Amino acid sequence: MPGRSAAPGRRIALDVMSGDESPRSRIRAALRALDAYPDLHLSLVGDQQLITGHLSSIAFDQSRLTVIHAGKTIAMDEKPSFALRSKEDSSMWVALEQVADGHAAACVSSGNTGALMAMGRFALKTFVGIDRPAIAGAIPCAGGSVLLLDMGANVDCSANNLYQFAVMGSLLAATVRGITAPRVGLLNVGTEDIKGNEQVKLANRLLKEDGRLNYIGYIEGNDVFAGGADVVVCDGFVGNIALKTGEGVAGLIRDSLVAAFQQTLWRRFLSLLIAPVMRKIYKSIDPVVYNGASFLGLQGIVVKSHGHSDEEGFFRAIGEAFREVDSDVPGRLAEEIELMLGGE
Amino acid sequence: MPGRSAAPGRRIALDVMSGDESPRSRIRAALRALDAYPDLHLSLVGDQQLITGHLSSIAFDQSRLTVIHAGKTIAMDEKPSFALRSKEDSSMWVALEQVADGHAAACVSSGNTGALMAMGRFALKTFVGIDRPAIAGAIPCAGGSVLLLDMGANVDCSANNLYQFAVMGSLLAATVRGITAPRVGLLNVGTEDIKGNEQVKLANRLLKEDGRLNYIGYIEGNDVFAGGADVVVCDGFVGNIALKTGEGVAGLIRDSLVAAFQQTLWRRFLSLLIAPVMRKIYKSIDPVVYNGASFLGLQGIVVKSHGHSDEEGFFRAIGEAFREVDSDVPGRLAEEIELMLGGE
Repeated sequence: MPGRSAAPGRRIALDVMSGDESPRSRIRAALRALDAYPDLHLSLVGDQQLITGHLSSIAFDQSRLTVIHAGKTIAMDEKPSFALRSKEDSSMWVALEQVADGHAAACVSSGNTGALMAMGRFALKTFVGIDRPAIAGAIPCAGGSVLLLDMGANVDCSANNLYQFAVMGSLLAATVRGITAPRVGLLNVGTEDIKGNEQVKLANRLLKEDGRLNYIGYIEGNDVFAGGADVVVCDGFVGNIALKTGEGVAGLIRDSLVAAFQQTLWRRFLSLLIAPVMRKIYKSIDPVVYNGASFLGLQGIVVKSHGHSDEEGFFRAIGEAFREVDSDVPGRLAEEIELMLGGE
Repeated sequence: MPGRSAAPGRRIALDVMSGDESPRSRIRAALRALDAYPDLHLSLVGDQQLITGHLSSIAFDQSRLTVIHAGKTIAMDEKPSFALRSKEDSSMWVALEQVADGHAAACVSSGNTGALMAMGRFALKTFVGIDRPAIAGAIPCAGGSVLLLDMGANVDCSANNLYQFAVMGSLLAATVRGITAPRVGLLNVGTEDIKGNEQVKLANRLLKEDGRLNYIGYIEGNDVFAGGADVVVCDGFVGNIALKTGEGVAGLIRDSLVAAFQQTLWRRFLSLLIAPVMRKIYKSIDPVVYNGASFLGLQGIVVKSHGHSDEEGFFRAIGEAFREVDSDVPGRLAEEIELMLGGE
């Protein structure tokens, strides 16, 4: 990566075109991020005319914002293999290229996850010692939040993959989230040694043997939300199911509450009284708050914002990318991987 | 199964000893079930002195209740292989033997799931054509409940296993739950054909080819709780994680609500006003309501009650067993399996 040494500073490339929502909300989020982080520089990648059109009526620090034209957008339902073949001039690819060429330190996109991962691997490569990148994201739990990985990049994982995820997750929790000796748990169907499938049992042995991680052993699905660990490791199939099941149950309870409090006039009155408290609770489990999943294992920072993320969600994803730049996650990861995996 | 033809009628054998709660609550549940189902006969299996002691002060229809002595109890943390070797005289084994010998039509236990499955397979055998039994249970969803299997019996599953689970789950939903042409979904990380691991993709093909099932294709974790299917099929690892993740999120929200409404005097007052509504919502997602998971694929009815199930939970598990007896689930399953799998 010769280009990467040309210090990209604190410039982040934003793919403002991809996703289910309008580019306008992502551009607004970008301007909010410029206000929030005085050191931050942004490259907005996408349709130049559209972007400058949105920017024309707004006052902002022009010295910290560049627009880079990309005429195409990868569709949300594009097959990753097809997206990779037809990537040129797409906002996603051009934003990733900014990182690969050393012009930016990170890239944020709310586009198609599979395409972003495929292009990210192609443009940035994985670290030597890491077979597969993982998607790591925070989810709410009692007393705060927990980092879960893999959230869906790898539907099949070997014990070694899971072990590598644990190493990367622990590092992210320690650097970006500032947790000393993060407690790392391996998601399983029970906590006894005999429980689990072969990959999980073998990963458990690998993790126990590595004295450098604060490995706490198996953790069950319910204990994840009770705050039993700082980092929870699983394969991408299980991670996706856990994440979406959690969303589904939260949605079911929310809908049940709304419906129940609409049933009578008295209940509608009560619902007005409790609205402020309920809003706070919904907020504490709102996926927007936890938006910004990190692609870990790539030789560069890529943050995936949810496809439906609004201005607030995209703003938070930029914040996640900024903190990773600030903590030099790829640099620290390279050192850790050499220590932990290269020394074998 | 020569002994099985000696029509066991509507007698159900209850292992009243196993589980985390006291036998007393299970005995009370048994007496409630006798009241609720006039056709039901029960065999209470366990420490005779203890059981008759509990029964001595209570009036009930003695003609429909028998006590069968078993001096040992399988511990909740017993390894299934060890439990199987030392099973003789245990309440779990004696209750299963009642079914195997044709003295009872079903068995209910709230003991160690692994031990119950291992003993159940040993005592009752699986149907020819079914490689592995699955654990099927109802979970709450928008507008009612959905049958999920496998909930944890098989941590690794082939495409064929998943296909067989779909056949069995569909039959259980149609007979016991009275759903015409139950919509069967395959749990996956996305709904597009390219999504998923190899087993799931192959199972998808097998299910599409079988025109007799009302197969609706892939279903994602969040859609399970939105009521997108009547039966949801997955391997036991994923099923366990989905189930416990759901419990975890529900618990987190409940605890957040309780804590938020304790914070000020005004909120405590509000919490009193909304208590009746909240109780109803908690009830609608209470695991107790959905207690009673069926071991499908065995040549006999075995219902697993949750280890922590109280009187209400165990009562509901007996009800589930009674409905399966009433619908002759094993007989119907044998026919279906011959039609669907034997005809290959």
